[in-house]
Amino acid sequence: MNFTLNKNTRICVDATDYPGIARVAGKVTGDFELVFGSSEKPERHSGSFSEADLQDGWVYAGCIDHSDMIRFFGKAGLADFSAVRGKREVYSLTALEADGKKILVIAGSDKRGTIYGLFRISELLGVSPWVWFADVLPAKKDDVTIPFREPVISKEPSVKYRGFFINDEWPSFGTWTNKHFGGFNADVYDHVFELLLRMHGNYLWPAMWSSCFSEDGPGTASAELADEYGVVMGTSHHEPCMRHGEEFSHVKGVDSPYGNDWNFSRNREGLIRFWRDGLKRNAPFENIVTVGMRGEADSEMLGRECTTLDNINYLKDVITTQNDLIWEVYGDRSFKVEKVFAVYKEVENFYYGDEENEGLRTWEGLDGTIILLSDDNHGNMRLLPPAVDRNHKGGFGMYYHLDYHGGPVSYEWVNSTYIPRIAEQMGQARECGVSDLWIVNVGDIKPLEYPLNFFMDLAYDYEKWSEDYASYPGYFAAKQFPEADKETVSAAASILEDYSRLNSVRRPETIGPDVFSPVYYKENESMLKKAEDIADRAEKLYQRFRGTASEDAFFQLVYFPAKASANLLKMMLFAGKNNLLASRGCPSANGYADGIKACLEEDARLCDCYHKSRDGKWDGMMLSEHIGFMNWNEEEHMLPQRTYVTPYSNDRVCVSVTGNPEYTMGGDWTRKDILMTDLLIPGGVGEIRLENCCVSGCSWKAETEENADWIQLSGMEGCLEGAAKDANGSKDMGRNVAVIAVSADKDLLHQACMAAESENITGTVTVRCGRCLARIVVAARDHSEEERSAKHYVPVLPGNLKAPRGGTALACAIEAAEYDEITPGRDCNFKVYDPYGKYHSGIRTYPADGGNKNPSDMPSALYTFCLPEEGTYEVTLIQAPGGPVLKDTYCRFGVSVNEGEIFATAAVDDTYKAGENSCRQWCHSVLVHEKRSAFTIQGKKGKNTIRIYGFDPGVVLMRILIRKAEGENPASFFGPLPSFVV
Amino acid sequence: MNFTLNKNTRICVDATDYPGIARVAGKVTGDFELVFGSSEKPERHSGSFSEADLQDGWVYAGCIDHSDMIRFFGKAGLADFSAVRGKREVYSLTALEADGKKILVIAGSDKRGTIYGLFRISELLGVSPWVWFADVLPAKKDDVTIPFREPVISKEPSVKYRGFFINDEWPSFGTWTNKHFGGFNADVYDHVFELLLRMHGNYLWPAMWSSCFSEDGPGTASAELADEYGVVMGTSHHEPCMRHGEEFSHVKGVDSPYGNDWNFSRNREGLIRFWRDGLKRNAPFENIVTVGMRGEADSEMLGRECTTLDNINYLKDVITTQNDLIWEVYGDRSFKVEKVFAVYKEVENFYYGDEENEGLRTWEGLDGTIILLSDDNHGNMRLLPPAVDRNHKGGFGMYYHLDYHGGPVSYEWVNSTYIPRIAEQMGQARECGVSDLWIVNVGDIKPLEYPLNFFMDLAYDYEKWSEDYASYPGYFAAKQFPEADKETVSAAASILEDYSRLNSVRRPETIGPDVFSPVYYKENESMLKKAEDIADRAEKLYQRFRGTASEDAFFQLVYFPAKASANLLKMMLFAGKNNLLASRGCPSANGYADGIKACLEEDARLCDCYHKSRDGKWDGMMLSEHIGFMNWNEEEHMLPQRTYVTPYSNDRVCVSVTGNPEYTMGGDWTRKDILMTDLLIPGGVGEIRLENCCVSGCSWKAETEENADWIQLSGMEGCLEGAAKDANGSKDMGRNVAVIAVSADKDLLHQACMAAESENITGTVTVRCGRCLARIVVAARDHSEEERSAKHYVPVLPGNLKAPRGGTALACAIEAAEYDEITPGRDCNFKVYDPYGKYHSGIRTYPADGGNKNPSDMPSALYTFCLPEEGTYEVTLIQAPGGPVLKDTYCRFGVSVNEGEIFATAAVDDTYKAGENSCRQWCHSVLVHEKRSAFTIQGKKGKNTIRIYGFDPGVVLMRILIRKAEGENPASFFGPLPSFVV
Repeated sequence: MNFTLNKNTRICVDATDYPGIARVAGKVTGDFELVFGSSEKPERHSGSFSEADLQDGWVYAGCIDHSDMIRFFGKAGLADFSAVRGKREVYSLTALEADGKKILVIAGSDKRGTIYGLFRISELLGVSPWVWFADVLPAKKDDVTIPFREPVISKEPSVKYRGFFINDEWPSFGTWTNKHFGGFNADVYDHVFELLLRMHGNYLWPAMWSSCFSEDGPGTASAELADEYGVVMGTSHHEPCMRHGEEFSHVKGVDSPYGNDWNFSRNREGLIRFWRDGLKRNAPFENIVTVGMRGEADSEMLGRECTTLDNINYLKDVITTQNDLIWEVYGDRSFKVEKVFAVYKEVENFYYGDEENEGLRTWEGLDGTIILLSDDNHGNMRLLPPAVDRNHKGGFGMYYHLDYHGGPVSYEWVNSTYIPRIAEQMGQARECGVSDLWIVNVGDIKPLEYPLNFFMDLAYDYEKWSEDYASYPGYFAAKQFPEADKETVSAAASILEDYSRLNSVRRPETIGPDVFSPVYYKENESMLKKAEDIADRAEKLYQRFRGTASEDAFFQLVYFPAKASANLLKMMLFAGKNNLLASRGCPSANGYADGIKACLEEDARLCDCYHKSRDGKWDGMMLSEHIGFMNWNEEEHMLPQRTYVTPYSNDRVCVSVTGNPEYTMGGDWTRKDILMTDLLIPGGVGEIRLENCCVSGCSWKAETEENADWIQLSGMEGCLEGAAKDANGSKDMGRNVAVIAVSADKDLLHQACMAAESENITGTVTVRCGRCLARIVVAARDHSEEERSAKHYVPVLPGNLKAPRGGTALACAIEAAEYDEITPGRDCNFKVYDPYGKYHSGIRTYPADGGNKNPSDMPSALYTFCLPEEGTYEVTLIQAPGGPVLKDTYCRFGVSVNEGEIFATAAVDDTYKAGENSCRQWCHSVLVHEKRSAFTIQGKKGKNTIRIYGFDPGVVLMRILIRKAEGENPASFFGPLPSFVV
Repeated sequence: MNFTLNKNTRICVDATDYPGIARVAGKVTGDFELVFGSSEKPERHSGSFSEADLQDGWVYAGCIDHSDMIRFFGKAGLADFSAVRGKREVYSLTALEADGKKILVIAGSDKRGTIYGLFRISELLGVSPWVWFADVLPAKKDDVTIPFREPVISKEPSVKYRGFFINDEWPSFGTWTNKHFGGFNADVYDHVFELLLRMHGNYLWPAMWSSCFSEDGPGTASAELADEYGVVMGTSHHEPCMRHGEEFSHVKGVDSPYGNDWNFSRNREGLIRFWRDGLKRNAPFENIVTVGMRGEADSEMLGRECTTLDNINYLKDVITTQNDLIWEVYGDRSFKVEKVFAVYKEVENFYYGDEENEGLRTWEGLDGTIILLSDDNHGNMRLLPPAVDRNHKGGFGMYYHLDYHGGPVSYEWVNSTYIPRIAEQMGQARECGVSDLWIVNVGDIKPLEYPLNFFMDLAYDYEKWSEDYASYPGYFAAKQFPEADKETVSAAASILEDYSRLNSVRRPETIGPDVFSPVYYKENESMLKKAEDIADRAEKLYQRFRGTASEDAFFQLVYFPAKASANLLKMMLFAGKNNLLASRGCPSANGYADGIKACLEEDARLCDCYHKSRDGKWDGMMLSEHIGFMNWNEEEHMLPQRTYVTPYSNDRVCVSVTGNPEYTMGGDWTRKDILMTDLLIPGGVGEIRLENCCVSGCSWKAETEENADWIQLSGMEGCLEGAAKDANGSKDMGRNVAVIAVSADKDLLHQACMAAESENITGTVTVRCGRCLARIVVAARDHSEEERSAKHYVPVLPGNLKAPRGGTALACAIEAAEYDEITPGRDCNFKVYDPYGKYHSGIRTYPADGGNKNPSDMPSALYTFCLPEEGTYEVTLIQAPGGPVLKDTYCRFGVSVNEGEIFATAAVDDTYKAGENSCRQWCHSVLVHEKRSAFTIQGKKGKNTIRIYGFDPGVVLMRILIRKAEGENPASFFGPLPSFVV
């Protein structure tokens, strides 16, 4: 049957039920008002409930065990709650007709189940979880009719505790809440709890840099409100016994009952008192109590002179004491108290122990306590529970980061996490049994709405979103822009997908002018194209949303992050070009300098718009620094400098070619030949770039020298205007610049090579500009049919030619998904993630720790490639930055070349420590978003194969790079373009 | 008696005399016109001459052996020519009264003597040699009365052949003469010859890059004119037999009688014909014939596979053939033909030979031929004749450079040679017997008027100018600005002195942004002060000359070179500051960027003024490129880039101190202590520089920490304005910058050190700017009375402090002239040159090769210095860049420390090759204008001595540098300020 909601719909709850249910009913009523224009207040029924109390069109909501009213529906046989009963956080929606009245019954298995059921109504009305927190307005309607063929039964959440952590909340969240709410109090948390619940979350770590959740409500107001809402409160991993980070410093003192020293050896009694009072204060509420201890301000607990055993014993003492305190405070209820112990950074050693000392891992004192693991602060899995540990009583949790304040670099600005990476990485955790608690550091909440919502959805319905993650952008966009047409939603989704992917491969804060090569692989140019494309699409779409109800939501959720990060990327790409061209004395540098200035102004404008939008509702929220970090935090960050070149008054041209950092100005004495290698690639096309650096115009004329008639030039002559004296905003392709495309006439090249009795040949192009004369030596190959049609071909510089300083661009990149075949393993297979990570795709053993180390039991992927000549080649396996995820593994793959012997190749060694700023390897891998292992092979001319075997758990292959093992690998962020696949 | 010249004065010459004498008489008459407003044409007397022919007030000029008229004065007993007769290029001026008529007789020992005598009249009238070539106008007068107490007898010139070489004449001289004279013809050479003769020169190498002197007159017109003037023509060192560099390429060919190959083995007959025809063509004229041969375009003659002996024999064959050709062409006159053989670069090996092969040095085939030696192209002596060679029949000549086109860098713009260096270096040549021919490469003539005139004067009257060189600027200025008062002349002289000195230590072309340290020794700042001072003085003086007859002369001779080179220096100093400040994110960089732009515009303006001055007379003459050479020539030269910094929107300050490249922005996590070392120097004062990099203003407050009350700060608090968003032209000392001077209260420092029981101490200054906090650690020493009063004190960083990266500025520089005493040697002494070279002074053994290698026979100079502590110190002897001047010497001094054993310290080794671009040491030494040798010594606390002994000939000591032998020597062009003398 159908059930229709409209402005007359009234929600009825039982006065005996949890008060939070009535509160949430009020929120849903608010949603009615947004959708229908007005609404009726919820009805709070007191006393016994009977059929006579039923009103046509009303919604009856309650917890099956707490609401007499809901019990009535069961008893009366009007609804069946057996599918709900005994489950966790589950609800049913039953539309029925009784006594001639159509009603809807929301029955929750428990308080949160009921609340999720109520918010399900909002969802059905088209109200987003972000209705308040991102000004997502639902479509206005007269009524909404929901067809019920049978009762809706919700699923039990995939993960038990699901929540987020407001962290690194200064300057943005802190400034904002101080301005609008007067502090970190119950008023602001009301909105936070609502958001959490609407996203099916149930767990929260509150802000703790400068505030004490249980003191600032005022008093325990926030804690009480959380409890009313059914939000389980935690404190972060290093705040034991419901005490907040800052709290000890507020109450400590020489004369304080809590003592003055955060050290359990020296101030045992004081700390016990401190913890006991914390537990007592929060005992009335639903909490997860953190146990354990570490030093103040994220430091180590004991001094360096102490042994591992000292530390283990110290922690055992602390935890035993805390367990005792819980027993003392909670009494009989204590067996129900959830506890969490964080295995974070330095504590890891004491958890795992060493050869001589059994760690806390097997200690019964942690039985019943959730072991909270964590990523490496940059979204990559670190150690996961090995199979042998998974029966731990208490289970496992994962602390993940969408925001981080620490080394090697903080990221606290717009989203720089890519959804598929969350799915794949949190998938590894789940595959290894981590499903009791998922908490994510979400910074200031805004502007991380998008990945936060995905994280929460994944935690609530892992089965769906671990597989369907690629459809999430569209799903999310549709929810936030309910009035938009399909095409608009799809356009918004693709912007979400593209900006977040772009940001994820290099965090915006860490993009400097030198990151993307202005020389090799047209990396700068292609990134600029991407950035401009995203910015253009965002701008166009924003114009479409202007004046609609979704304008603000689009601005906050899509436009701002996409536009601002594309703008920052553009700024740095301009700076890279500016540096390169200025160093060559090219006046086109000036256009880029102006471009940098415009981007800096645009950045300020965007922040300003954000702060002014919605009548200043979000004023203060966009204060995080984000440009040019030189350190782990924003201190001493550098805005890109703008360098201007003065055009020259004498004849002067700068000639360069694709993929070669050398250039010439064609002077008589300083002239040098410039090598072009593009025609060594089948179908390759090179470019010669001429820039007139002189104020006067000049004509140019290109010629191929004798016997080089196989070289085809897109232009043979032309005029270059003089370089403008002042920067005029025109960039690279100003009229003082010309680009000549260079390609080969296949037949003439073949003839020339036949005549030369060689597969390779060189020819020379001379370009005369004014009085300058430049010579470009074009290397080419008369590719065989096999080479031309090969799936992957490795272009090679002929031995008689010298690579330019900086290295040649010649190499072949094979995408992980470009395999010929995958052979499954015994207990596992390769799972293909596409899209994924830094490049295009990834493959990894699934489940993460499936199979064993015997290669014949492992899945393998076969790749073929073609070589122009036999010799020693360098193969580099590029993998995702995560792992190792089990102790004593090294991110290894097994490799077999031309089906020869299998050998293992490791990306890390014993010294590798994920999450440790002192580990340069790790720092590098999170900055460049990959790990590499390289080895040389003896290749034969023609077809060769490489077979990659799964080996260590958790390793995701992204790319294979093959090149002649000579000279430098050119500096570039992405390396060669994939495959040169014809 | 007095003789009065006025507009009625007439010069009378004899028709039998050399025609050139009449021509020059006409030039002098032209001078009369300039001075007196009008003039009488010279009278050409024909027939016999008698008393009756005498006219009152006339001037009678002629050569004693060629003029019947002059013979008459002798015979008639009216004048006595015995003091002139038989001498070379000598004249007498005799004023006499005969028959009641006052007359003046100019009698020359020969043609040139007579001509010099005639031009002496011009000189007496106040007419400068530069009357045409630099528009130097004489003062207008009614008459000039010359008192003659007795006849004036001129001196015999010090050097036999004295002249210059118009070279590297493109783009300036070439463009100019094409524009104004239609080529390199007799019309332009007329002016050149006149200039040469007015400067007492007698010898010229004509321009040869693109012209043939003996063909372009048209025809031999130029050669004929030279001969008429008495100008001896040469061809440059590699143009044998009066043939010009370009000539062979004009006449060679497969069918040419001269053949097609510039190779005496392969084209013997053709080249003999080529040379013979050259000798024949120029035989009618007075020449010095170049003999020998080298490859085309300054290349080696024979291939690398040939031995030294092959080359020696080849050259002997060539020269013997050329000698035979001279005999054939000149016949009996051949014994009078002057010949020159150049020992230049690669020919040197064949001249000196090697262990197995006697070189051309002792070969009788070169008897009677002048051996032409040369400097290293940068004004520094290379090999000079050892005593044993000085009896060579033919004597020696020297080819010197005021202009050069070659490596390591060309200098073809304004003068960059310092007069005292010419005097000292050419003095070495003269002291070693090089006095038969001095020729100087003078580029385009303009704008090298000043050093060219000095070179010519030194060659003509070596005895005077080798001693009086310091007075030359005043002497020269007085001659060019005859109407100026003493003070104006002196001001002009000091500008000449200062700009030429500044240019000489670093050629303008080679000044880049990094040359002068923006960090150490306030080098950038003090150079900027010098540059601005010179520019200001030039500008002020120019304003005084505006509208006077000397305006153009002042512009060309003083204003332009001084102003333009000061402007270029300023531009590069701005660029250095711009780079440094931009790299630190300091918005004050922007003012410097604007400054660079202004300097670039000023450079263009000055060239434009030059070209437009005197109604375009010099249009084209100032085209030589001069900014930012990156190669030996102007190709790919780089104008300084201008880098702009965007002011920051968050609190941000940049704090740095004198003499330390480190800086801090005072952030919580990136803060570092900055070390100030200035107070380790007696009386030293340091500076803390604060720059507010933020757009908002902030206040600052400085404090000394506890126990550091001895630190005195010039300011304790203040406000910094916000950095301007746009560059506003304000430079370093904008109102967003503050400088705090740091000094020590002597008494409080003493007390603090007593309390600390140490001679050294540190104290800390904290500076708070907005939210930033910087800490400066000030190191100081409680200097003893001995240390304070020491003539030279070596400040040392206490052992407990770590020098900043880049090194500390702590060192002591002792000027060569700051000796305690000089002890003469047996046959020689130290001669002090002051001013001199890169620093202040120089001392060298005089005569250059005086004494022998036994230190006890050599002169020595004693220096004392005071050390704060015993230990190992590094002593560096800095010498002028010249030498070695004798084979198998190594620019050594003898050294004795604390009067201990004498040891030798060499500045070069066997691989050193002056003038060879492939020798990096040499290239470096001519770029930095010094050579160094360093050694360590064990110093004792308190007074120490170092005694420097003359050792190898030609070595000029300029400075002694002493520092603790630890860490880097900071990057700086000049190094520490001299002495720290109290």
